[in-house]
Amino acid sequence: MTTAKQWVLASRPDGAPTVENFRFEEVELPELSDGQILVENTFASVDPYMRGRMNDVKSYIEPFQIDEPLTGTAVGVVTESRSNKFKTGDTVRHFAGWRTHAVLSEDQAEQIDTNLAPAEAYLGILGQTGLTAYVGLTAVGEMREGDVVFISGAAGAVGSVAGQIAKHLGAAKVIGSAGSPEKVDYLTGIGYDEAFNYKDGDVNGQLAKAAPDGVDVYFDNVGGDHLEAAIQNANTFGRIAMCGAIAQYNDTEPAPGPRNLGLSIGKCLTLRGFVVGQYTHLAKEFQEKIAPLVVDGSIKYASTVREGIENMPSAFLELFEGGNTGKMIVKF
Amino acid sequence: MTTAKQWVLASRPDGAPTVENFRFEEVELPELSDGQILVENTFASVDPYMRGRMNDVKSYIEPFQIDEPLTGTAVGVVTESRSNKFKTGDTVRHFAGWRTHAVLSEDQAEQIDTNLAPAEAYLGILGQTGLTAYVGLTAVGEMREGDVVFISGAAGAVGSVAGQIAKHLGAAKVIGSAGSPEKVDYLTGIGYDEAFNYKDGDVNGQLAKAAPDGVDVYFDNVGGDHLEAAIQNANTFGRIAMCGAIAQYNDTEPAPGPRNLGLSIGKCLTLRGFVVGQYTHLAKEFQEKIAPLVVDGSIKYASTVREGIENMPSAFLELFEGGNTGKMIVKF
Repeated sequence: MTTAKQWVLASRPDGAPTVENFRFEEVELPELSDGQILVENTFASVDPYMRGRMNDVKSYIEPFQIDEPLTGTAVGVVTESRSNKFKTGDTVRHFAGWRTHAVLSEDQAEQIDTNLAPAEAYLGILGQTGLTAYVGLTAVGEMREGDVVFISGAAGAVGSVAGQIAKHLGAAKVIGSAGSPEKVDYLTGIGYDEAFNYKDGDVNGQLAKAAPDGVDVYFDNVGGDHLEAAIQNANTFGRIAMCGAIAQYNDTEPAPGPRNLGLSIGKCLTLRGFVVGQYTHLAKEFQEKIAPLVVDGSIKYASTVREGIENMPSAFLELFEGGNTGKMIVKF
Repeated sequence: MTTAKQWVLASRPDGAPTVENFRFEEVELPELSDGQILVENTFASVDPYMRGRMNDVKSYIEPFQIDEPLTGTAVGVVTESRSNKFKTGDTVRHFAGWRTHAVLSEDQAEQIDTNLAPAEAYLGILGQTGLTAYVGLTAVGEMREGDVVFISGAAGAVGSVAGQIAKHLGAAKVIGSAGSPEKVDYLTGIGYDEAFNYKDGDVNGQLAKAAPDGVDVYFDNVGGDHLEAAIQNANTFGRIAMCGAIAQYNDTEPAPGPRNLGLSIGKCLTLRGFVVGQYTHLAKEFQEKIAPLVVDGSIKYASTVREGIENMPSAFLELFEGGNTGKMIVKF
C-alpha cells in the first residue's frame, strides 16, 4: 500500500487567496489495476490560471472541488507499472500535480526525454507554456514579419518565451513590461529590444516612448492599464491577443474593461481571447518550429524553483506578487 | 452669383449636443471653374458618426471645424456644369451635405440612377450604410451559415439592413434589439426571427431567452450593456463586430469597457472594431451580391424623413433619442 501526500482545496478564496485555502493531507493509494502506473512526482507546476479554478465558476476548465486534491501539470518517475507502455524508471509528464504520488491510467501520462532537456523545460517552454506563447503570437495575434510587438508580464513563463519567438518570427521590435529592474535586465538579456518597469508608473507613456511607431501586436498577460495602453498606442488593424489578466484575478468585483475600447472602432483593432486548449492542433507545428530552438539554446528560458511540496501553496501565491522570473516550479 | 444656405459648427458640445452648437448662415458661392459643377441638394444624411466629428479629436475622420460648414453624404441635382462628366439635370451623390448648394469638382460627385431606386436609398442602403452592414457581418464578424446573430440598434439604418443580410447569408437565427414596441414589430416584419425592447430592462436576460443556444456573431451598434450581454451569451469562438457605440457618444468621461471582457479569454472570443472606410475594396462585392436584392425588394429598408434644411440639426439630435427607424434623412 502506497501513501501519498496531497494538497486539497480547503475553502474558496474571496479576493486574494491565502495558504488557509489549502490543506495538506495524507491518503492511501489503491493497488494498481491492469494498464495503470504508479508515479512518484519530482516537479510540479503552479500557474496563474489555477486561480480561476479556485472559484466555483464554470469556465473552460473545471473548478477545483472542496476537499478534493488539486491538479496541474507535473513530472515524475514511474515506480511501478502494470502497463505495457511504461516501465519502472521512465520519466513522464501528466496532470496529477499537487501530490507526491499518483496512480494513473497509461493514457494519462506521456513519456519525456530528460536527456534532451531538463524536466523543468517539459513543465514550461516545451509544454503548454511554450505552446501558449507560440499560439498567442501566430494564430491569435496574427503576427507578421516587421510588426512591432508589445508583451506584458514579459518576464513570466509565457511572456519570456513569447518575446523570443516574436524575434525569431521576424518582429521589427519587441517591447516587454515587467515589475522590477532585475526583470527588465533579464528581458533585454534574452533578446527583448526594449523593456520597462511598469512599477515606475505611466504605462501608457512608457509604452508610447518605447514604440514611437505604434504597436501592431500586443500579447496581454496582465489586463488593466496595460491593455488600455496597448489600445491607445495600437496602429490601425492592430491585434491584441488576450491570454491572461493576472492583475485582475483576485478582484472580488468584475473589473471594468478598458475605458478606451471605443478607439478599437476607428483603429479597426482586433482583440482576441484564447486558451491554449483550443489550439492543441498547433502543437506539432510548435514542436517542429520552436522546440529545436529551445534544445539548441537559441531560445532561452528561466525557471524559478521552490523546494518542497509543503511550500507549493506559497509558491503559487508568489505568482501574484511577481515572485517568479520565467516558469514557477516546485521541486519535490 | 449663387447664394447657398449652410450649417456651420458654432461650438463644440460638452456631452449631449444641442441646436446651439449649430449656426445657419448664408454664403455666396464662387463662379464655376473648368471641371466643376454646381449642385442643388435635395436630400442629406444625418448619422451617429457625425457626433464624433463635433469633438476636436483626431480620429479616422477629420473633426468638424468651428465656423466651417459641416459635411456628410447628400444627394442633389446638377444645375450648372463646366464638366464633361456631368450635365445639367443629372442626379449625383457627394459629401457636401448640410447646405443647399455646393460647387464641386467633377471627381467629388458620382452619378446615381433614381429610376433604379429612390434618392433616399443612395444615402443609405445602397451607400455606406448598406456596405457597413455587409462588411460588419462578413469581413469583420466572419459570419458563417448556421450562426446565431445578434444585432443591437437593429431598427437603425445599419442594423435594419444587417439583420436582413444575415438571413440572406444563411444565419440560423437573427435577433435584434431596439428601443420601442413599434420598432420591435418593425424588426419582425422585415425578417428578424426575434426582437426585444431593451427599454424593458435586463438586456442580458432578454438576450439569453432569445438565444438559448448562445450567440455566434454580435453586430454592435450600441456598446454598454448590450456589449456585456453579448459577451455573456457568446459561444466559444464567438465574434463581435464593433461598429458603433451610440449609447456612449455623448459621455463626457470615457465609458468603462465591458466588465466581463475577461470572459473573452476562456471563450476565445474575437472583438473587432471597424470603420467602413477601411473596407471600400468590398464595395464591388456588395454591389453584386446585395444591391440587386434591394432593387428587387427582397431586402427592405426604411427611412425616417424630416423636411427642411432648417431642421437638420434637430433631425441629427433625434438620432440619440432613437427618433429614427432606418436611415434618418432630411429632405430639402
